Amino acid sequence: MTWDVFNLIGTIAFAVSGAIVAMEEAYDLFGVFVLAMVTAFGGGLIRNVLIGLPVSHIWAQGTLFTTAFLATAVLIILPATWIQRWLRWNFVFDAIGLSAFAIQGALYAAGMRYSLGTIVVAAVMTGIGGGIVRDVLAGRKPLVLRDEIYALWAVLAGFAVGMRWVGPSQPWGLYGLLVAVSGLRVLSVLRGWRIPRRSLRPSRTPIPDVDPDDTPTPTSGAGPGTGDASETSVHHGGGD
Amino acid sequence: MTWDVFNLIGTIAFAVSGAIVAMEEAYDLFGVFVLAMVTAFGGGLIRNVLIGLPVSHIWAQGTLFTTAFLATAVLIILPATWIQRWLRWNFVFDAIGLSAFAIQGALYAAGMRYSLGTIVVAAVMTGIGGGIVRDVLAGRKPLVLRDEIYALWAVLAGFAVGMRWVGPSQPWGLYGLLVAVSGLRVLSVLRGWRIPRRSLRPSRTPIPDVDPDDTPTPTSGAGPGTGDASETSVHHGGGD
Amino acid sequence: MTWDVFNLIGTIAFAVSGAIVAMEEAYDLFGVFVLAMVTAFGGGLIRNVLIGLPVSHIWAQGTLFTTAFLATAVLIILPATWIQRWLRWNFVFDAIGLSAFAIQGALYAAGMRYSLGTIVVAAVMTGIGGGIVRDVLAGRKPLVLRDEIYALWAVLAGFAVGMRWVGPSQPWGLYGLLVAVSGLRVLSVLRGWRIPRRSLRPSRTPIPDVDPDDTPTPTSGAGPGTGDASETSVHHGGGD
Repeated sequence: MTWDVFNLIGTIAFAVSGAIVAMEEAYDLFGVFVLAMVTAFGGGLIRNVLIGLPVSHIWAQGTLFTTAFLATAVLIILPATWIQRWLRWNFVFDAIGLSAFAIQGALYAAGMRYSLGTIVVAAVMTGIGGGIVRDVLAGRKPLVLRDEIYALWAVLAGFAVGMRWVGPSQPWGLYGLLVAVSGLRVLSVLRGWRIPRRSLRPSRTPIPDVDPDDTPTPTSGAGPGTGDASETSVHHGGGD
Repeated sequence: MTWDVFNLIGTIAFAVSGAIVAMEEAYDLFGVFVLAMVTAFGGGLIRNVLIGLPVSHIWAQGTLFTTAFLATAVLIILPATWIQRWLRWNFVFDAIGLSAFAIQGALYAAGMRYSLGTIVVAAVMTGIGGGIVRDVLAGRKPLVLRDEIYALWAVLAGFAVGMRWVGPSQPWGLYGLLVAVSGLRVLSVLRGWRIPRRSLRPSRTPIPDVDPDDTPTPTSGAGPGTGDASETSVHHGGGD
Repeated sequence: MTWDVFNLIGTIAFAVSGAIVAMEEAYDLFGVFVLAMVTAFGGGLIRNVLIGLPVSHIWAQGTLFTTAFLATAVLIILPATWIQRWLRWNFVFDAIGLSAFAIQGALYAAGMRYSLGTIVVAAVMTGIGGGIVRDVLAGRKPLVLRDEIYALWAVLAGFAVGMRWVGPSQPWGLYGLLVAVSGLRVLSVLRGWRIPRRSLRPSRTPIPDVDPDDTPTPTSGAGPGTGDASETSVHHGGGD
């Protein structure tokens, strides 16, 4: 029951991020709805394909579908200033979604007696798969592959479940994991943590943090924590 | 039997549109065949994955495969002026394909007792899925998400089947739906109907219809109905 | 047993090519691992979806996963000059991978009594599917669709198996096919063979071999066979 609330928060946050990306790319309203739904449900769909769960299961989530659809519809009619305010906080809801979806994806794979590696992949794909499909459909390079620490927290969630540190029989352990993973994600946004890169050039010059050719998005936020969180709005996943 | 004719028309139109996009992107002949087949059969494939029909079913359509393959081969050897003439009418055949594929996708989902929402998704994905994969493989933003009223008519087809207004036991109802959906699509091309967009900017300036950064295609047609229909050639789907 | 060695070589070569593309795009280390694994295993995954084999089978390849993961990790810490030297030869290993994966994909489909066309598609997708997903995730137009003769050798492998010229009961026939297909691929790199294109322009001017707008990659090698093989590093597939 309580878990459903986290799923709901995450689904809304993911749908909003998909809708925002579609609007940034000047897609029409049909495109806005498609990207919203794909971001919210794409990760769970990919996970089901990968670990052999029936994809048709995703159609049993009537409430979540309706919620994602309504959230998108509300977003479309909201004044732009309200949207900006919403986006300032969306990364927190998004972190909850990432965490809830990753844990749930890991539990599915663990319940099917998969090995540690598969459980981690299931957690990660549930958490980030929707965001990747969203970016591909928007003609962007997937953000999660090139910037910010996002997927790593899904790896952590998968690892904790895969190592049996927590499991379905320990609800409090799962809540603790959810808080830890969401919190680490929120922290990494506020602090601007990044995963290092590896240059291919023989020279020893440091790799610049931002590649000017590498930013096809018009979301030029002033950066996390400075009040303009539009950049943080376009992250993630796609849950169950 | 008669329905097979519509499927055949749609399959050819979709394969042609995929082949044209590949040629526009200067892909080699292998790429031309891949994009042709993907556009013609991608939608049915995605639908099968989504609603849990065996994907292997798509391999049972030998005649359609051969037809799509031959149509692509013919297109490759045709003089460019003939291709231009063909493209002027391809949007009509394409509309028939969109309609036939969407209705068929909806009927599959309805036959599996899915809810209205799933039936609509099945109709839409059968109709537009191939075109989306085509555009992604061509490095383009999916046209159906950003311009023209295309998918909406597939939604209508799915809705009509999902609400049980028509069904497999009413062949004439299905033909009527096919004519209506194809006709509406043709009309929306001729009239240049578009789905509205939603701007993210707080200002109240109108959104321009055409975003100059947003047109990676060299298909700068003079617009539908003016004799140069190259732009209208690159729409849609991917059927059963 | 011996076949496993070819699979291993191919898996490493494909993972390396994925990792290199990710580094070229300035993706972070998470993105490097994702593109490596996707390139190595994406083709087999797509083939399983297409011909109806359980996708969960791909998780039974523990050794290959570990190998691909370790190869990527080693690549990340290698000096750039060593990477350049590795890349000079990677196209040979890659050719072995293309060949081994295509033959294996064809054998799977043949074992399920599919028709010739499906067997060819299974061979091709096992060989090139991972490379296509890699390029899409890197925001590039799939190389295999627009340049060099790569997929055609996978078609040949599929055709030979589909025509029952060779089969599981003739191990020597399969080895011969592997040598032939790998050799033809290596030859087509060294000789710079290309598949023709088809222009859409009515004029009869020849199509230039290289389209300047068509090269989003910074891998401007001096061309195959001239000592700089970085361009040849980014080809292919995705295996079993």
